[in-house]
Amino acid sequence: MAFRQKLFFIKNQGRKLAENPTSHLFMAKEITSREENYSQWYIDIVQKANLADNSAVRGCMVIKPNGYALWENMRDQLDRMFKETGHVNAYFPLFIPKSFLSKEAQHVEGFAKECAVITHHRLMNAPDGSGVVVDPSAKLEEELIVRPTSETIIWDTYRTWINSYRDLPLLINQWANVVRWEMRTRLFLRTAEFLWQEGHTAHATKDEAVAETRTMLDVYATFAEEWMAMPVVKGVKTANERFAGAEDTYCIEALMQDGKALQAGTSHFLGQNFAKAFDVKFSNKENQQEYVWATSWGVSTRLIGALIMTHSDDDGLVLPPKIAPTQVVIVPIPKPTPEIDEAANKLMKELRSKGIRVKYDTDDQKRPGFKFAEHEMNGIPVRLGIGARDLAEGKVEVARRDTKEKANQPVEGIADYIIGLLDEIQQNLFDRAAAFRTEHTTKVDNFDDFKSVLEGKGGFVSAHWDGTSETEEKIKELTKATIRCIPLNNPQEDGKCVLTGNPSKERVLFAKAY
Amino acid sequence: MAFRQKLFFIKNQGRKLAENPTSHLFMAKEITSREENYSQWYIDIVQKANLADNSAVRGCMVIKPNGYALWENMRDQLDRMFKETGHVNAYFPLFIPKSFLSKEAQHVEGFAKECAVITHHRLMNAPDGSGVVVDPSAKLEEELIVRPTSETIIWDTYRTWINSYRDLPLLINQWANVVRWEMRTRLFLRTAEFLWQEGHTAHATKDEAVAETRTMLDVYATFAEEWMAMPVVKGVKTANERFAGAEDTYCIEALMQDGKALQAGTSHFLGQNFAKAFDVKFSNKENQQEYVWATSWGVSTRLIGALIMTHSDDDGLVLPPKIAPTQVVIVPIPKPTPEIDEAANKLMKELRSKGIRVKYDTDDQKRPGFKFAEHEMNGIPVRLGIGARDLAEGKVEVARRDTKEKANQPVEGIADYIIGLLDEIQQNLFDRAAAFRTEHTTKVDNFDDFKSVLEGKGGFVSAHWDGTSETEEKIKELTKATIRCIPLNNPQEDGKCVLTGNPSKERVLFAKAY
Repeated sequence: MAFRQKLFFIKNQGRKLAENPTSHLFMAKEITSREENYSQWYIDIVQKANLADNSAVRGCMVIKPNGYALWENMRDQLDRMFKETGHVNAYFPLFIPKSFLSKEAQHVEGFAKECAVITHHRLMNAPDGSGVVVDPSAKLEEELIVRPTSETIIWDTYRTWINSYRDLPLLINQWANVVRWEMRTRLFLRTAEFLWQEGHTAHATKDEAVAETRTMLDVYATFAEEWMAMPVVKGVKTANERFAGAEDTYCIEALMQDGKALQAGTSHFLGQNFAKAFDVKFSNKENQQEYVWATSWGVSTRLIGALIMTHSDDDGLVLPPKIAPTQVVIVPIPKPTPEIDEAANKLMKELRSKGIRVKYDTDDQKRPGFKFAEHEMNGIPVRLGIGARDLAEGKVEVARRDTKEKANQPVEGIADYIIGLLDEIQQNLFDRAAAFRTEHTTKVDNFDDFKSVLEGKGGFVSAHWDGTSETEEKIKELTKATIRCIPLNNPQEDGKCVLTGNPSKERVLFAKAY
Repeated sequence: MAFRQKLFFIKNQGRKLAENPTSHLFMAKEITSREENYSQWYIDIVQKANLADNSAVRGCMVIKPNGYALWENMRDQLDRMFKETGHVNAYFPLFIPKSFLSKEAQHVEGFAKECAVITHHRLMNAPDGSGVVVDPSAKLEEELIVRPTSETIIWDTYRTWINSYRDLPLLINQWANVVRWEMRTRLFLRTAEFLWQEGHTAHATKDEAVAETRTMLDVYATFAEEWMAMPVVKGVKTANERFAGAEDTYCIEALMQDGKALQAGTSHFLGQNFAKAFDVKFSNKENQQEYVWATSWGVSTRLIGALIMTHSDDDGLVLPPKIAPTQVVIVPIPKPTPEIDEAANKLMKELRSKGIRVKYDTDDQKRPGFKFAEHEMNGIPVRLGIGARDLAEGKVEVARRDTKEKANQPVEGIADYIIGLLDEIQQNLFDRAAAFRTEHTTKVDNFDDFKSVLEGKGGFVSAHWDGTSETEEKIKELTKATIRCIPLNNPQEDGKCVLTGNPSKERVLFAKAY
């Protein structure tokens, strides 16, 4: 089976290099291999690369400094892209009055069910001295919900901000925490509380709102591919998978190394649904009252989970240079000396002046091999080993994290070499993931093949579907696969639904998904 | 009374300049003067400069794009300063198990009382079809509190992160939202939900923790003075005003234009209180177990309120250039022409290349006078008027927001002139606020003077105090003034308590406060 073969290949490649005494004898921390247990491999990376931890609060994670630094880089780049496309940031309340959720009929079904409900606003000392208890006299008149998403509170606010066509468009984004009471949680991928951004825009016309929805889908796809080196399919969701309250949900879908798909971002055309629910009208140029058109779009800390599962290997995290908090680490071999310090400091200065994020690991308690394994675990794209003998010969050792290749390079011109290497690594990670996706996207034309591909190599299955929710649900029931999306610019061709044999005009992408 | 006289002077100064037809005939929005009603003046500025709004949720504000852009600039600069002093960011859960609050005896008294309490995790459709109601079967085993501050959840986490002296110090900051159920709220100054940062550090020794507390106090003071142009007094709180759970609370105190003090930031030395409450020990170099030493420190969106009340005037917001989202606005007079566009674009390009944030107001629906008033309301430090006739003479009109002075300047070298002017405005705002504070800091030696200063010109009152909580509380009861702080490096002198006449070794700063 291709997927397992590939894993085996990657694993052995890792092993071969690990035979180098500097990187296996002193291995800092062991992680489970992907082949042995993919889920445990993911957990091991999250924990051993110090990205996140479970907390004392069920389903809520602690994002550790390494994980948060990654999120900061992703957030800052997305924020720049939002601002370049004309958006501004604002901040809306954490709490939503319960009654707001009922105002949009679809929305309440999607979001009002599993949520954190605030019923009281005071604690008091327990009469028996055992601590604090809820003060029954401090019951709220109306319960508040911790936002699972902010359409309702934001459209309630927009009513007071929008009067005339001159107030439109309103192009606002919010960086915030949200809470959805998930029963089964996984660090980054599905947590009760997570961090995200949610854009909420208001427009005078349907066309403009649809164009905004597509613009933001493109921003997400560009970010995923150019910054995260993660190839994505842009598409539109079927009615079943649509955001609760949307007329259309566009998405970017990525493929993980275990052959499962992951929805990495969504952009919703909301029509006039929220404007009607919250009575948001504007007077147009002809001075007539019209309902406002809306979009919303979001990505979250889930992207970190996607990033891990796209690139990492059995030695730990692998990060694309563009978003790696540290791009280059310099390790003195075997330990710092005045000569090595001098060379390292000079190089750091030069790299920093060119915008490269570089660290010098001067810890004198750890041996080089231990450090190598640690920096590999943390996914630092390039490691430079500087030793006295090499230095005397005008050389340093350069190791790249993605391929695990090592080579001596002349000190002369090393900064430019590294800058070029970082670009090469960024491109290689994308190419590798894109090749994996190509290999794991299979056209099938009958249901037996459909099932055997899903059970075998996994990945995306491109198949005809008769367009009904019934068929979609039946396929899910039989195979656990869902329609990830109808790709944009999908070729039109006559075919027969893979389950029912009914006529179909295009293939859609099925997969098991996170 | 000096304070009123000063206000009157400032007001008339504003009026005189407003007689210029371009800035009063087309006044965009009226605000209440400080003299007439200081509280309403504050509210008017917050609302008319589009900084924030009340929301549908009691006590929770909406931070509008103008207000959020200001917060972003403040946050980004603080974040740089935290990182320069060795801190990293992380993120901890929004929710705190109720029992955690009881673990530190002082802390629970300070924070567990007025808070948002989550008791359920699900809603269900109301049987009568009227919307959604709390599902009684989804009651939590233990209630969760929305964090009012995060010492408890963070120290519960640190227990698993800290084993050895090698794990210390831990220098972590978090940017987050917090909730305190305030009864009387005011936009930015006191809201149920607010945004802030909270640093939580862990140290092997008491000395190191105390030094950290002081370092962060200095960071806050530097930020307030050099970036917000807001002079502050650094000091230590009395036992009465200490953070719940701290051994010492250091603070920066600023003085607002109505003569009331505002606590602008705090830095707490927490001793081993939280380490003991959450059993966080480390093995020292001698392999003995010791409790860890702690600090915490924070500033919040309250700083925006302080900023407004430090610099603004009866024409609107006044912003220090270093944190103004837009530093320079160019207004075409009376409207854009190809020549004016060309000059404006050239100038913008030059200013942007020098790091200046500049906008060109090309709106052709509004007249210059209206725009002038609007940009004054929004506090943009420098306004450039470019008209065809002036341009032909090689001149542009430069107006500064702080003094309302206007002058023609040669186009030649205008970028450098503006950069110099922005520095001058930054310095002038600080000097003006410092002069105001000097004028409103009064040494008094008897209680009659104490009361009459507080009732008259207000401001800080520097007086001897006998060091007891009883006296402090009695003074508060009689005058509403509290001890804002015992200034650092306070001169030691023999004196008598202003209330009791008991001996005292130093003066402390009293004031009415926000």
